[in-house]
Amino acid sequence: MVRMIARLKGDKVVVEDAKVSDRLNSRGYGRLVDEEFLELHPVEALYLSDERKIRVLDEEGNILGVERLFDMFSGMDERFEQKYMVYRDLRKRGYRINCFHELIDRNLDYYLKPKRKEQRDIFAIAVNEREEFRLREILYFLDSLDPLIEELWTGVVDEEGDITYYRIYDVRPKGNLDDVKGIRCKGRIMKNLIVIRDREIGKELFEQGFYGNLADNELTVSLLEAIHLMDTGVLEVYDDDRRMDKEELLRIARSHQKDFDPRYKVYKDLKERQLCVKTGYKFGTHFRAYERDPNRFHAEYLIDAVEDDFRSSWSSISRGVRLAHSVRKLYILAVASGKLRYVGIERIRP
Amino acid sequence: MVRMIARLKGDKVVVEDAKVSDRLNSRGYGRLVDEEFLELHPVEALYLSDERKIRVLDEEGNILGVERLFDMFSGMDERFEQKYMVYRDLRKRGYRINCFHELIDRNLDYYLKPKRKEQRDIFAIAVNEREEFRLREILYFLDSLDPLIEELWTGVVDEEGDITYYRIYDVRPKGNLDDVKGIRCKGRIMKNLIVIRDREIGKELFEQGFYGNLADNELTVSLLEAIHLMDTGVLEVYDDDRRMDKEELLRIARSHQKDFDPRYKVYKDLKERQLCVKTGYKFGTHFRAYERDPNRFHAEYLIDAVEDDFRSSWSSISRGVRLAHSVRKLYILAVASGKLRYVGIERIRP
Repeated sequence: MVRMIARLKGDKVVVEDAKVSDRLNSRGYGRLVDEEFLELHPVEALYLSDERKIRVLDEEGNILGVERLFDMFSGMDERFEQKYMVYRDLRKRGYRINCFHELIDRNLDYYLKPKRKEQRDIFAIAVNEREEFRLREILYFLDSLDPLIEELWTGVVDEEGDITYYRIYDVRPKGNLDDVKGIRCKGRIMKNLIVIRDREIGKELFEQGFYGNLADNELTVSLLEAIHLMDTGVLEVYDDDRRMDKEELLRIARSHQKDFDPRYKVYKDLKERQLCVKTGYKFGTHFRAYERDPNRFHAEYLIDAVEDDFRSSWSSISRGVRLAHSVRKLYILAVASGKLRYVGIERIRP
Repeated sequence: MVRMIARLKGDKVVVEDAKVSDRLNSRGYGRLVDEEFLELHPVEALYLSDERKIRVLDEEGNILGVERLFDMFSGMDERFEQKYMVYRDLRKRGYRINCFHELIDRNLDYYLKPKRKEQRDIFAIAVNEREEFRLREILYFLDSLDPLIEELWTGVVDEEGDITYYRIYDVRPKGNLDDVKGIRCKGRIMKNLIVIRDREIGKELFEQGFYGNLADNELTVSLLEAIHLMDTGVLEVYDDDRRMDKEELLRIARSHQKDFDPRYKVYKDLKERQLCVKTGYKFGTHFRAYERDPNRFHAEYLIDAVEDDFRSSWSSISRGVRLAHSVRKLYILAVASGKLRYVGIERIRP
């Protein structure tokens, strides 16, 4: 097959031949400008060169090889490497990719046509594992999309060039568990824990409200749980014989956990959504949460409560997502700033 | 049953009655001082009080209740809460615990008599999940023990009072995989990756040395792998037509990964131990490592390379251990400072 010719004009790669333009465009490449020529995106130009479909010439008519093109495009865009790797990978997986889609000004790299009819439209971003995970950026992307018909993917390129894909989306957890009612009891503060020594009531709180940890003589609940139970009028907390008020417990809780406030806000909200919320320590997250009876079903969610300025490494996000996946749960970042929001991150194989 | 009497003398709880002393001591409690009286450890005194086995009196003969004792002991030792929780839990699990063992000056909280003959002697420390994980401290504990006959456990008390136990021990990974030999090839640096475009050689490196990630036209290897392959005389790396030296690649690698040096030291050592070492990105760790053919067996280890001043949260350690466990691997902190050392952390149910 004769290779089609594209030309570098300024910093753009264009195809001027009308027949070639049509042919490429009908396969999803480039965008037609003024119906005069086809502009190719740098990743398209490199991909088509590497696939030996086109030959890119510079303005003097010299052939620009694949390596030369790579260097040139990398010089123009520091994210070029990961963008190209993800583009190529998705193409090879059979996706038709639009690089000139309507949301390009929102910094979403690609629009992917769904493979099946019932799928949502896909917008994808390409990431290098060494980049920082910035929650605000992710929220910005999510807010650019209509969740009913569109979804967000990220392709993370690791140091060996392998790519892991995540689908990121808003989740609305909803349980069917009623909080305990009509119980009144007293607890005593130890150092980090509140101890409820009334066995009957302890058992009731544990079995019906799933609070705390039941040892044979007593129920221990966390400061977080205790503050919630004070809020709902169930628990009074004492230090020796002195009754403590909520502010005092809040002060202690904050001194133990710097991020207590977002944690508590998320905890409260999940309780209102009728979930059972327990510590996620064993999974290395803030919470694990159940929509249904924890005695009969596994937790659906592993949740970290964060503010919207949360930053992390993609590696750490990867660890959370992989762990949740391996125990069949969904990893959620619960964003406590402003209106509460649950962002689910799920590994996918496109 | 009549409760036995113990007395608070200064800041110690002692039993003076010889018969009572013998009885308690024969069950593993306390230590005999000058064969005159039995000294009880605070956790023992509280435990026995809570179990209604003893009554502790102050010097005026007043009964000190469980809550009073807890407050008193907490005031004397800020780690008392977790120490007590772990002590009680292990007792209930049927362990005989010596609080006055020979390594108490190494800050190991408890000596546990193994339940079965073939088990090692156990030394345990009690931790609160909010405490920092300090690797140096763990190494100090490990160095206090004889790994042939003794082992280290940590009991981590979470915010609800539940306890997760870890066994921590030195590991000596050993594989049976030969590194590639007799190959010479050229690679080209992209931004974060080295591309080897010779398909045959790429395939050989991938299939025999398990290097990099094979796309259809090329093999991409990480900077780390490339530097290793330069070291072993297999690979020459070019930037355009200019051959790069190792120092230059090291500089680039260090600019991408602040902790590149410990990573590389660990990588090298694992290769010398004949393991296959690949990125652990998908698991959120630095490496995954195979002792046997990765095409036929799963990786045995998830490894993070760290310096000995490494500090982390127990929650983050928990995440790594839980993930490794759920995919049937062992989580290892590879300590790159000084003589290389592999510290395995494994969740156990005592």
